[in-house]
Amino acid sequence: MCRWMAWMGQPVLIEEALFNSPHGIVDQSLHARMGAEPTNGDGFGLGWYGAGEGPGIYRSVSPAWADANLRELAAHLESPLFIAHVRAAIGSPVQQTNCHPFRKGRWLFVHNGYLAGFHEVRRALMLAIDADRFPDVEGSTDTEVVFHLALTLGLEEDPIGALERTVGTIEEVAERHGIAGAVQATFGISDGECLWAVRYASEGPARSLFASCDAGAIQSLYPENPRFRRLRADDRMIVSEPFSDLPGVWQEIPQGTVVAVRQGSELEQRPFVPRRVRGQGPTAARDLAGAVDG
Amino acid sequence: MCRWMAWMGQPVLIEEALFNSPHGIVDQSLHARMGAEPTNGDGFGLGWYGAGEGPGIYRSVSPAWADANLRELAAHLESPLFIAHVRAAIGSPVQQTNCHPFRKGRWLFVHNGYLAGFHEVRRALMLAIDADRFPDVEGSTDTEVVFHLALTLGLEEDPIGALERTVGTIEEVAERHGIAGAVQATFGISDGECLWAVRYASEGPARSLFASCDAGAIQSLYPENPRFRRLRADDRMIVSEPFSDLPGVWQEIPQGTVVAVRQGSELEQRPFVPRRVRGQGPTAARDLAGAVDG
Amino acid sequence: MCRWMAWMGQPVLIEEALFNSPHGIVDQSLHARMGAEPTNGDGFGLGWYGAGEGPGIYRSVSPAWADANLRELAAHLESPLFIAHVRAAIGSPVQQTNCHPFRKGRWLFVHNGYLAGFHEVRRALMLAIDADRFPDVEGSTDTEVVFHLALTLGLEEDPIGALERTVGTIEEVAERHGIAGAVQATFGISDGECLWAVRYASEGPARSLFASCDAGAIQSLYPENPRFRRLRADDRMIVSEPFSDLPGVWQEIPQGTVVAVRQGSELEQRPFVPRRVRGQGPTAARDLAGAVDG
Amino acid sequence: MCRWMAWMGQPVLIEEALFNSPHGIVDQSLHARMGAEPTNGDGFGLGWYGAGEGPGIYRSVSPAWADANLRELAAHLESPLFIAHVRAAIGSPVQQTNCHPFRKGRWLFVHNGYLAGFHEVRRALMLAIDADRFPDVEGSTDTEVVFHLALTLGLEEDPIGALERTVGTIEEVAERHGIAGAVQATFGISDGECLWAVRYASEGPARSLFASCDAGAIQSLYPENPRFRRLRADDRMIVSEPFSDLPGVWQEIPQGTVVAVRQGSELEQRPFVPRRVRGQGPTAARDLAGAVDG
Repeated sequence: MCRWMAWMGQPVLIEEALFNSPHGIVDQSLHARMGAEPTNGDGFGLGWYGAGEGPGIYRSVSPAWADANLRELAAHLESPLFIAHVRAAIGSPVQQTNCHPFRKGRWLFVHNGYLAGFHEVRRALMLAIDADRFPDVEGSTDTEVVFHLALTLGLEEDPIGALERTVGTIEEVAERHGIAGAVQATFGISDGECLWAVRYASEGPARSLFASCDAGAIQSLYPENPRFRRLRADDRMIVSEPFSDLPGVWQEIPQGTVVAVRQGSELEQRPFVPRRVRGQGPTAARDLAGAVDG
Repeated sequence: MCRWMAWMGQPVLIEEALFNSPHGIVDQSLHARMGAEPTNGDGFGLGWYGAGEGPGIYRSVSPAWADANLRELAAHLESPLFIAHVRAAIGSPVQQTNCHPFRKGRWLFVHNGYLAGFHEVRRALMLAIDADRFPDVEGSTDTEVVFHLALTLGLEEDPIGALERTVGTIEEVAERHGIAGAVQATFGISDGECLWAVRYASEGPARSLFASCDAGAIQSLYPENPRFRRLRADDRMIVSEPFSDLPGVWQEIPQGTVVAVRQGSELEQRPFVPRRVRGQGPTAARDLAGAVDG
Repeated sequence: MCRWMAWMGQPVLIEEALFNSPHGIVDQSLHARMGAEPTNGDGFGLGWYGAGEGPGIYRSVSPAWADANLRELAAHLESPLFIAHVRAAIGSPVQQTNCHPFRKGRWLFVHNGYLAGFHEVRRALMLAIDADRFPDVEGSTDTEVVFHLALTLGLEEDPIGALERTVGTIEEVAERHGIAGAVQATFGISDGECLWAVRYASEGPARSLFASCDAGAIQSLYPENPRFRRLRADDRMIVSEPFSDLPGVWQEIPQGTVVAVRQGSELEQRPFVPRRVRGQGPTAARDLAGAVDG
Repeated sequence: MCRWMAWMGQPVLIEEALFNSPHGIVDQSLHARMGAEPTNGDGFGLGWYGAGEGPGIYRSVSPAWADANLRELAAHLESPLFIAHVRAAIGSPVQQTNCHPFRKGRWLFVHNGYLAGFHEVRRALMLAIDADRFPDVEGSTDTEVVFHLALTLGLEEDPIGALERTVGTIEEVAERHGIAGAVQATFGISDGECLWAVRYASEGPARSLFASCDAGAIQSLYPENPRFRRLRADDRMIVSEPFSDLPGVWQEIPQGTVVAVRQGSELEQRPFVPRRVRGQGPTAARDLAGAVDG
């Protein structure tokens, strides 16, 4: 299990979301309430958009609650769009290359959940990754494989479509291996302009996922709250679990759903529907089908 | 808060006590039951007697549950006497020099608890350390200061007497600073021949501490248990909290008490009584009193 | 031995100075030319002024050349004033709290060199630190003690005067201990407005230190160089050793000298003259003299 | 570039070989003389046979010269057979799973050198690994792939034969990719009974490799040397570069050669001849040939 959060809106010091909220993501590294385990102490990562080319990432194998550098960065980095992730490893080593977010060019990717029977399907899924992208896989997590598969299937042109094809492919591979409940996931994705969040499980309830409500609505509910008063119309957070218990501040994202956060728009929402790619997709997808058969 | 354990008896692979017990010390790094916090993820340490001169120590800033090297060492080191400690930092940095056990020559020292108002008394206590020993202080924990004070006050000749003088001194310094409840502690100490364990609090209930019962008694209660069948008469464990819920296996060490484990003897037990050293002790102690006045 | 560098001028991506120069500070972590040892692989640190309150610091025990996070931060942090330091430990542990820069409020402090016989004078010097500041000492380096002594002696009001009193005090303490060549140092200090650099040795040649020449002079020497063309009049670097062999780009800072870099001014330079504080300074200094006697 | 060493003979404290020799392997982490680079500071590893099942391994991302735990282990572990490796990364991340030795059951494996164009051949080589072993690949080095390929091709039954087939396969794959000088290597392999060392390069001179001379010969050359006097007839070291300049103590292992060290025997030596496996080997090898074609 893991926990993640994303901010999109006015530029803020990152510590606002990481440390200064009552049950912020760093508190969730030690005391998660809605996950399988309270502790997410097997490393963490932060990806942010700001100065320089593309997003920066800071990843560490220390628990988030104890990392002095994370406090420093959070207190001295301002960003309009960032994603943070705290990790609870299930099987794979605690190493920086296994920490989220994963990045390719302008894209960031985080995941809470797992691929069922990953040990058994790892090879088949890695073979389905573009040969050119294969050497970029640096770690040993299921998530990094999902990300490179999604890149193979077109993430950079059509992120959600590619992710639907990716999940469909994984479900197909799992099926061939007799594995049930192939994908358990919330995903966070961004290209620096838009922030997407997916909640999906092949079987049973998916991991929890929430979006903050509209800033105006929050402010009219809690007119005296000084933190809420600083919110602007475009500010939005996506979180694995709410930072507070205040009613009317957080809305649950329904299972099997993807939401998109864009500047100047409402929160968009539509179904997330995995698709199998066999024999119908672009070249990479057809190759993939072949590889999966092999 | 922290948790620690010590084994003295027949040589065993260290993993027996660290990993193979149902609620062993590594499990307690993630799921402690009797402490203020369930998580003890701010580093750990292992000290063992075996080959080479004096005890070896392995200390790491990783959480014990996630450290691949700890698993390796535990599975490949055999020792008749070892102490392990998992740390929950309160204020001081997560760094190897702040991990227990501390060592001097043949001596190992661990602590669960704290010095109240340590920030305020740190200087006075460090001044009370022998000038010659002062440069050996490498980290910034209260425990390391306690250890060097105890060395100053004669730990190597009279470990428990020295520790009683040390606690008395700390209580005196705290009193001058208007600090109540100066010492909260269980201590584990060894010279490779004997293992001492102290349970003491200046005020209120002390941290929990248990000793395993006599091997024979355990075996007659659980004649079928294969782990217990391997016990020998001299085997003894001291633990912050029991490794299992089985009745008759663990005995609580009373507050204000010190126990001593020696090969071929019963578990010895006597009161632990802090003593103030002003004007009555050896030179170092008198100097100390002067320093404390200053 | 260590190496450090500081930039003050137009805001730049930090990687310009850390990675993109031919013999920049990260290259010096592996291949220093002017120091006692080529390797400075015992951790590093970066302090920068930018968003948030006061400077941020990032410190790590990894060698600078191998730290993926340093590359990330350098590529995504823009700052008008930053200091980087690569460490070669001499005796004290490799831990974050021993990495430079040290910080207090708006102040950053780095050091290349050592205090002779630090093991012997550590206690006397730590006693000379303000009792209130004493608990802030987190690591075990000589440099951190120098910094807290300088704070005790007025660094925040009169940085160079305080440093002259600090060095004078250290020389006096060393003399009492029969230690020659007490201080070997280049220091870098900033409050975010001004950058000071000191080159001094109690005996013999001091560690190397250089300032970049005036931007205009550099540009007229190398009119075709694209990196130099981007320089502005106020840009200045201070470095332990030059980033290139180009004549006319770097000027050596003479021994026993302090330079000051301020926006809109020439490089100021004056002698650095250690002063003993006995019986003549402010209260803290007089107390210090007493402590040193004690 | 990397450096490694292996000891086989009477049980010794590991520090004898790591720290107490004038130019031992830890000194080589900072000051290698015969390699492409003097610094091997990107982590290290130690594998040893002793208590517990199979060999233990301790791997760390710290430079060997600065790792306090390595000093501890070396001073308190006694072993008749151990291998140590200091790493200089070329491209792949500094993480424990990229540190040597690699292990499978009773087998240890280290490598100095590289696979040319690994980025391009990584996928083809990983496909050639047994599907069942594929999920065991945890890191991203060329060496780990070599090891799992060799396991696939029979390392556990016929270590040198398997390694000859492995190198042959790699050369074949490289050829298909138009890559010259496919393999540059010294390898160290052990099962706890025997120690093999290979020196081979597909093109040009191979990395340096030496064996210690017979104990008796060394002792008759240097009858007064107290370290040499402790040697017994069966003691043997294999090293990337000699620990001293003393003539008659070290013999160079010729290129294209494998040596075997066994208790009670002379040093055995024979040519190392890579073999291509297409169409002639066991099933795994034939599958491999197919995979390589694909």
